[in-house]
Amino acid sequence: MPEFRQNMATKEWVIVSANRGKRPSDFAKESEKKEPPPHYQKDCPFCPGNEDRTPEAVYRSPEEGNWQIRVVPNKFAALQPDLATTRSYIGSFLAAKGFGIAEVVIESPEHHKTIALMQMSEVSAVLTAYRQRYKAIARNTDINLITIFRNHGPRAGTSLEHPHSQIIATPIVPPHVRYPIEQSIQHYDQLGSCVYCNMIEEERRQKERLIIDTDNFLAFCPFAARTPFETRIYPKRHMPCFSSIDNEEIEELAWVLRNLLLKTYNCLGNPDYNYVIRSAPIGDEDTRYLHWYMVIIPKITTPAGFEIGSGIYINSVAPEDSARYLRETGTDS
Amino acid sequence: MPEFRQNMATKEWVIVSANRGKRPSDFAKESEKKEPPPHYQKDCPFCPGNEDRTPEAVYRSPEEGNWQIRVVPNKFAALQPDLATTRSYIGSFLAAKGFGIAEVVIESPEHHKTIALMQMSEVSAVLTAYRQRYKAIARNTDINLITIFRNHGPRAGTSLEHPHSQIIATPIVPPHVRYPIEQSIQHYDQLGSCVYCNMIEEERRQKERLIIDTDNFLAFCPFAARTPFETRIYPKRHMPCFSSIDNEEIEELAWVLRNLLLKTYNCLGNPDYNYVIRSAPIGDEDTRYLHWYMVIIPKITTPAGFEIGSGIYINSVAPEDSARYLRETGTDS
Repeated sequence: MPEFRQNMATKEWVIVSANRGKRPSDFAKESEKKEPPPHYQKDCPFCPGNEDRTPEAVYRSPEEGNWQIRVVPNKFAALQPDLATTRSYIGSFLAAKGFGIAEVVIESPEHHKTIALMQMSEVSAVLTAYRQRYKAIARNTDINLITIFRNHGPRAGTSLEHPHSQIIATPIVPPHVRYPIEQSIQHYDQLGSCVYCNMIEEERRQKERLIIDTDNFLAFCPFAARTPFETRIYPKRHMPCFSSIDNEEIEELAWVLRNLLLKTYNCLGNPDYNYVIRSAPIGDEDTRYLHWYMVIIPKITTPAGFEIGSGIYINSVAPEDSARYLRETGTDS
Repeated sequence: MPEFRQNMATKEWVIVSANRGKRPSDFAKESEKKEPPPHYQKDCPFCPGNEDRTPEAVYRSPEEGNWQIRVVPNKFAALQPDLATTRSYIGSFLAAKGFGIAEVVIESPEHHKTIALMQMSEVSAVLTAYRQRYKAIARNTDINLITIFRNHGPRAGTSLEHPHSQIIATPIVPPHVRYPIEQSIQHYDQLGSCVYCNMIEEERRQKERLIIDTDNFLAFCPFAARTPFETRIYPKRHMPCFSSIDNEEIEELAWVLRNLLLKTYNCLGNPDYNYVIRSAPIGDEDTRYLHWYMVIIPKITTPAGFEIGSGIYINSVAPEDSARYLRETGTDS
């Protein structure tokens, strides 16, 4: 029987309407045909030897010798760092120059090495680069929001195979981000607790959607998952901002993220996916009512007119089933 | 230079970051290869002769003789009309049975005949069916929102070629719909006018994004269009609810919609697209601050991690350019 479910934090609704009998392999078909990419591709701008095809690195690791990670300004940036931030009306319409910071995190010198296939130390190094760049960008007082994300594969919006993530920092906190914050403030004022902390407790209590549970992190398919195999990773301790993560937590998060992505990779046959780190706006690092998290969305379904019109997603796999499949899938690479 | 632009009604922001030198033909490539579908396909559940493969029609036109339009309950509905609407908590999480109404509008007996290629009278008949079903469904006092939409092509979320639209009616008005309403109430309380009426006036004043301007309707690429070639059709007179449209307006809307879709078809090479009719919640038909409209979104780009995380869409074609291309494209079919 189909079911409406509400996201406790954002108050958005989804419809869980499971196609009974569908198995993960039914979603995997298209992806399975993919040839694995080569280790090195001569004309790839992110492969070693082509460093002159990207702007100069703002971060590299290690600092000397062959690089393992490079962070470079995005050569095809949608926003530019050298513009004014003044907002002004064009008639009745509000606009501003496209000020912002857009960087690319080249995660490995190896062309084929997506995060699911990395060593733990390599994943830690990627997360460390995220944190370092987050902190550096947050010092720019014109920046209000930093979004870190990864697009893997053409259905997830990238044609560049070489493993990379992106960071886009904007002077604007848009309604899409602000509305859930308003909801979490209301929750805090009413119940005196962080709605995300409460959601984590509830998922732990209900158990059936959990995938990975460590000392400091919980990975699960949320009760109101919008799409099949959507997963999230939350820090268990109350932490509004991703950059507050300490070194020990980075090691642990690397383990959780790698295993979760590898389970997804094995379960669905290297699906295209997006992941996003959603963190509090700059200046709200210490607030009682926000909580950063990662959301991982395999691109195996297409949002259509109903989703565009209503914002209600129809999820054809119950999150309990997605979680069970992912729990049962191993992490051999 | 990239630019932030705000949607005057919803307050959402977009980034317009034009890839200069890109022409509509660059977006059309993939679509152009498509073979036109046949006029009739034996195993299509919507082709004449296969009426027993769908549930019984709740509407047909004409009432006697060969049908031109059939509206049938969706056989694979995500929601069901025979469930209770009670909402209840599962632990801390709110849920309800999947009550709702899901119908399919089979727009033509001819398998290949998408709206862009229809006669005006055929398009009017489709819009008349929408209105009639809207009114009938709105009488169900458990329904609060009716979304009418059309998914054209696999990138828009449908694999069924036969021309059809869908109607999904829900007991829930979700935040995605409610938040913009709250904004329009604020606008009304502050300025004493409908924000959509004001937006239409401003688009008419600025002119450069207009595509089709008739007595009662305006079609344009909005100032803060989220995607290339996104277009909208608004009734010029203040009208919160689609079902308030009269017969004369239906004729005129059919003309505007057909020509706009045909321009899009010719300009981009029959792109996959979604269109949605966004109308006031049931009971708000007479409100001063809402205004129904149609939005048409060709699926030629892929929203990625940044859009998922921030809700800020990056539009690589300035709406002024999209509008100019569409104005310059003819309506020969």
